Amino acid sequence: MSNTNAAQSPVSVIGLGLMGQALAAAFIKGGHPTTVWNRTASKADELVASGATLADSVESAVKASPLVIVCVSDYAAVHELLDPLEESLKGRVLVNLTTGTSSQARETAEWAARRDGLYLDGAIMAIPPDIATDAAVLLYSGPKALYEQHEETLKKLGPVGTIYLDEDHGLSALYDLSLLGIMWGILNGFLHGAALLGTAKVKATTFAPLANTMINVVTEYVTAYAPQIDDGSYPAGDATVTVHQEAMEHLAEESETLGVNSELPRFFKALADRAAAEGHAGSSYAALIEQFRKPSA
Amino acid sequence: MSNTNAAQSPVSVIGLGLMGQALAAAFIKGGHPTTVWNRTASKADELVASGATLADSVESAVKASPLVIVCVSDYAAVHELLDPLEESLKGRVLVNLTTGTSSQARETAEWAARRDGLYLDGAIMAIPPDIATDAAVLLYSGPKALYEQHEETLKKLGPVGTIYLDEDHGLSALYDLSLLGIMWGILNGFLHGAALLGTAKVKATTFAPLANTMINVVTEYVTAYAPQIDDGSYPAGDATVTVHQEAMEHLAEESETLGVNSELPRFFKALADRAAAEGHAGSSYAALIEQFRKPSA
Ligand SMILES: NC(=O)c1ccc[n+]([C@@H]2O[C@H](COP(=O)([O-])OP(=O)(O)OC[C@H]3O[C@@H](n4cnc5c(N)ncnc54)[C@H](OP(=O)(O)O)[C@@H]3O)[C@@H](O)[C@H]2O)c1
Ligand SMILES: NC(=O)c1ccc[n+]([C@@H]2O[C@H](COP(=O)([O-])OP(=O)(O)OC[C@H]3O[C@@H](n4cnc5c(N)ncnc54)[C@H](OP(=O)(O)O)[C@@H]3O)[C@@H](O)[C@H]2O)c1
Repeated sequence: MSNTNAAQSPVSVIGLGLMGQALAAAFIKGGHPTTVWNRTASKADELVASGATLADSVESAVKASPLVIVCVSDYAAVHELLDPLEESLKGRVLVNLTTGTSSQARETAEWAARRDGLYLDGAIMAIPPDIATDAAVLLYSGPKALYEQHEETLKKLGPVGTIYLDEDHGLSALYDLSLLGIMWGILNGFLHGAALLGTAKVKATTFAPLANTMINVVTEYVTAYAPQIDDGSYPAGDATVTVHQEAMEHLAEESETLGVNSELPRFFKALADRAAAEGHAGSSYAALIEQFRKPSA
Repeated sequence: MSNTNAAQSPVSVIGLGLMGQALAAAFIKGGHPTTVWNRTASKADELVASGATLADSVESAVKASPLVIVCVSDYAAVHELLDPLEESLKGRVLVNLTTGTSSQARETAEWAARRDGLYLDGAIMAIPPDIATDAAVLLYSGPKALYEQHEETLKKLGPVGTIYLDEDHGLSALYDLSLLGIMWGILNGFLHGAALLGTAKVKATTFAPLANTMINVVTEYVTAYAPQIDDGSYPAGDATVTVHQEAMEHLAEESETLGVNSELPRFFKALADRAAAEGHAGSSYAALIEQFRKPSA
């Protein structure tokens, strides 16, 4: 039972892990004739039942569509799968949604160019259940004309959150990793807090709404600190690094007293201590940018 | 030029740092006869110009109002200021908005009780410019009846974000520190990302809106992981710990390649590695709660 539509162009999806399955499902739902391939073929079962065509090789998956999406564990897997294909990539558009570094993205763009292939690198800032919903954010970099040519199809994955960044193929990876760092920062902060409050029998589900209120409040600080970072000047209209250091020490001590891991606050404090030692005790938190800009000792 | 109002009860504010000044200004604006005191008296100048009364000692500040707010650097300063006052605290309500640990809050509650004082501990989840706006979140703990008696006055500091938590005086501090951990997590992630993107000449002001989009997306993960934490079971409907470990390694390598500090992603990865080593490679990120619950090695 396929709901394909003559107006929609064919798409192939290579890699059907948690994410690849969500991507393929979105194209099927969007009416695109969808060809899929996965190393472990059984992961295609549900997709085939909803109308996807299972290719019997990576090469036939590539040949089936002018637009080929790849989403596997890492770039090594991308190359393991696609390097052997010499001719079939020619003239096709490869969109790589696998997470990697900016240099891996740029190298893969060069690799594709050597095969006369057309290449967009992308990054998915969403979990599989959010694909095709308004919550999905996807970032693309590479030739703008190429992106625009396939924008409508790509928007099936993120109707409102599909963003083109830059001609530089490395930018989607660089943004991706930068945004993931924020995500882990939030999640670790939340888990640490949940562990602390857990000692007082406060449930994580009780903590979560307040945590989310706080998270929303912090978006304002991000907005306020960004121009300070660009200007290289960090006036403390809010709290000084000293005030932060003291509160970090409280968090570390609280954790130690309650038998909760204190590595996170101890690490926060070490960073703030270094900023203070370099003359930023009276600056805003944005002054810590200078610590992040330095290679680790 | 005072805009006091006979219907509004008098308030005293002790401590006029960045935050104390904002608190006192909110009470003045709200029409409360406001008495202020600060170690460095000059910080009261603007407040006095807008109608505050400057007390000549901590004791006369305490005696001036039935409700006394204290907001200084730490609990040691609170005690340094208030310990010498034996009689004057009797029957008055002391609201301590100084940041500290839950044990400091509980000890101060006992100290106040020994003086027949009434005590609420509070925490401010806002920066001074947000005080008295809808963005201000303030948490209170201690006797509920006491809170309710002064709720209207306290709401001058946070018209929509004033939250009563628990009879246990320690809870506002525990929530406070837990929420601050999330804040530092976000800010560090943002600064690290801004440092990375800065190497590609992307401005922090360009990054900030996308960072904030991501931050909002992560509130959904917090909501989704909370029940997993409470249940102690972490099915990966989104990304597995393995997928996170790989992406963390990319972030660390990207940082190292670009000469940006990699301590943050290396720390993230170390935590995720431990979770994976304990059997959570295929679990959701919520499984890391078990790492946070353990005292540091
Ligand atoms: N899940 C998320 O929330 C999320 C969010 C944003 C980005 N991403 C990114 O999306 C990519 C895929 O993630 P996922 O969650 O789908 O991971 P996953 O569930 O672990 O799936 C990994 C996929 O890669 C395939 N694969 C790995 N090595 C291979 C190789 N050498 N040859 C052929 N196929 C190989 C796997 O095939 P088998 O099935 O045969 O093992 C599977 O299809 C990752 O780069 C991840 O960072 C994921
Ligand atoms: N700023 C924020 O964004 C923020 C947000 C939430 C919570 N808080 C909390 O609010 C509290 C105050 O923060 P702040 O930003 O106002 O800090 P601040 O600008 O550094 O002011 C510190 C205040 O404490 C007073 N003080 C310190 N030690 C003292 C002592 N031994 N005796 C008498 N007074 C003493 C200072 O008096 P002098 O003026 O004489 O030095 C000053 O009034 C802290 O606990 C902080 O964590 C602040």
